[in-house]
Amino acid sequence: MELCSCYLLQGLTEDQKNRVTSVSKETAMESGQRIFTEGDEAIALHILKEGAVELMTVVENDFEMPVAILRNPGDCFGTPALLKPHVHSLTARCVEKGCLFTIKQFDLQKQIKDDPALGCVIMGNLAEYFLKRLKESRQELKVLFKTLLRYTRS
Amino acid sequence: MELCSCYLLQGLTEDQKNRVTSVSKETAMESGQRIFTEGDEAIALHILKEGAVELMTVVENDFEMPVAILRNPGDCFGTPALLKPHVHSLTARCVEKGCLFTIKQFDLQKQIKDDPALGCVIMGNLAEYFLKRLKESRQELKVLFKTLLRYTRS
Repeated sequence: MELCSCYLLQGLTEDQKNRVTSVSKETAMESGQRIFTEGDEAIALHILKEGAVELMTVVENDFEMPVAILRNPGDCFGTPALLKPHVHSLTARCVEKGCLFTIKQFDLQKQIKDDPALGCVIMGNLAEYFLKRLKESRQELKVLFKTLLRYTRS
Repeated sequence: MELCSCYLLQGLTEDQKNRVTSVSKETAMESGQRIFTEGDEAIALHILKEGAVELMTVVENDFEMPVAILRNPGDCFGTPALLKPHVHSLTARCVEKGCLFTIKQFDLQKQIKDDPALGCVIMGNLAEYFLKRLKESRQELKVLFKTLLRYTRS
């Protein structure tokens, strides 16, 4: 199942994966559909089953900077749902018709409370993922920083 | 105790905090001393007791971009020790003589194994922290991006 290939579930036992899968729901999405908007309350986690989703962040009031396009089944977004203050840090928009698995934050929190070892694996995977994104973001900062240095020096 | 004010330990019970504290060791640091270097294996987590530590990342072979200066007791660094592949993503250097609490990755992993609920809280705090840093980093990217747009348009 595509859901089980999600990085958040890596390292869980089959039984734990089945429990997470049992609270997920499939939802269709249409091209152009906004799934959530930066600043919205994050009430659910989404895992791509089919199609493609673009993640963006607002730079100016009228301009959204693309951050990533998710195309691989199992790709996951809306992870701020798992963390306080539960607010989306990006905007997600469907760019290719498809289907999502959705897991409500409330349902996942209940599973974590019942089985802290499951929570520990998921939270560890999440931290690992954010650290990777943070390194990438710092890498982009370095590139922009160097480019800017060239402009200011010329 | 300064160690308990570290963000990683928030939400733990007194008993859990005491267990974490029991495996920490105090180490003195001298101004100018390099605590670890970007790319090094991350074998321990450090929490500031006294003094100040600068975090940096290499931009060019000969230039290190400052990322943060930690001055508050309880400030924590070296967190990649808690996550695979256990490699430092930044360089840490003492900029004001002081003292650190150091917790070996091996000792903390043992505690997490023995008490997954403790691990779940620590990993959740870590993920929350990285998400905040990621948002800040994206914010800096936006600022540089806008500045660069001004230069390329002029």
